[in-house]
Amino acid sequence: MIDGEREISLACKHGIELESIFVDEAKLSELVSVCGETIIRLIQPVTSKVLERISYGQRQSSPVAIGRTPQTSLADLRISQHPLLLVLDHTEKPGNLGACLRTASACGIDAVILTHPICELHNPNTIRASRGTVFSLPVAVATAQELQDFCRAHDVQLFTARVDATASLWNQDLKSGGAFVFGSEAHGLGTEWNGPGLQSFSIPMRGVTDSLNLSISAAVTLYEALRQRIEASN
Amino acid sequence: MIDGEREISLACKHGIELESIFVDEAKLSELVSVCGETIIRLIQPVTSKVLERISYGQRQSSPVAIGRTPQTSLADLRISQHPLLLVLDHTEKPGNLGACLRTASACGIDAVILTHPICELHNPNTIRASRGTVFSLPVAVATAQELQDFCRAHDVQLFTARVDATASLWNQDLKSGGAFVFGSEAHGLGTEWNGPGLQSFSIPMRGVTDSLNLSISAAVTLYEALRQRIEASN
Repeated sequence: MIDGEREISLACKHGIELESIFVDEAKLSELVSVCGETIIRLIQPVTSKVLERISYGQRQSSPVAIGRTPQTSLADLRISQHPLLLVLDHTEKPGNLGACLRTASACGIDAVILTHPICELHNPNTIRASRGTVFSLPVAVATAQELQDFCRAHDVQLFTARVDATASLWNQDLKSGGAFVFGSEAHGLGTEWNGPGLQSFSIPMRGVTDSLNLSISAAVTLYEALRQRIEASN
Repeated sequence: MIDGEREISLACKHGIELESIFVDEAKLSELVSVCGETIIRLIQPVTSKVLERISYGQRQSSPVAIGRTPQTSLADLRISQHPLLLVLDHTEKPGNLGACLRTASACGIDAVILTHPICELHNPNTIRASRGTVFSLPVAVATAQELQDFCRAHDVQLFTARVDATASLWNQDLKSGGAFVFGSEAHGLGTEWNGPGLQSFSIPMRGVTDSLNLSISAAVTLYEALRQRIEASN
């Protein structure tokens, strides 16, 4: 279920297979102008009262679409030679996941991999918090072991975010990219993310804050990687 | 209204004047061990059923405290010679404000100034999203003009975040700190934030993302300032 004009237009643009779109007749031409005429056959005109009932949040006058959930596996991913990958392990909250995707898109990363996700990628809250970028990013689901094997096969350095790591984010060489792994909101990363070849790092913290929000940690890390890469290319 | 053991303990530690604390008797000794014996006179033992009714979110077994809202003005702020200040203008969403405070605390900033705030600093959602750091940070409320006058008087550079600014965050010299100004989620910064002496910047964006979440923008900016300062001091 996809609600919001912007979200539906991004789903259309990135090839999500839509089954129906429920829209207030008064807003139909606006939606067609954004999404293109190919959507006309999917349209189910409804009153704003009905939309109010089926929409997920408080956007009463927004259109709502029903689409097929795309499935992407690690084998489907096309990554560059020095990719930036975001790995979210055991992520629990759809809002956090969506916020991570929105930032990941802004950082131009190659792909997002969810290992053992607890919340669903296409939960309406995820879609909304991602501002529809969930449809524009390659997102695969895998086990921790599969992801680690994939990174070794593609010669991608694994970086694990841990609040107790002694190495600072800012002392990491991120110019060649890497896969940045963040654990669950409540429990961090488990022991399956220890071991040879995995470089742990922490984001420096002052004040009374004992942890950062997951989406904030991911943003600070991915933007530091982007900064180093842009600096290196100048 | 402050709910959560961690939040109440931070309020106690930072001198918030509490009037009463509602707590499940079974959890009373735990709370006293965290907050100290001075809270005993404020305790109102209640059943978990009652707590469920008065607590704001879904933390049924958490204690709930009622406290007096502290008032801080610009004149009360004690800032260092090269301070880091976070300025949030017309902020609308309590969750965003709280998330900004949590990160601001992690970056060790001197103070947060809210200019023309739309949401309340002590909204229960702000307190929760800040993880109680709202009580540990100096936060003042002022008009845009008062804040600009304050910064000029204290020789603090004003940096304004604008999605259409041509100067990149990464090209700013932030080693001497500054006041970083972020506009509302929906409308950005108004014309009162143009003018001589204000340096605008943008955070680079790739992909289909056309904007970053307010708390993400603030985090990426404040952490870049912290990074530059730590690098300069080494």
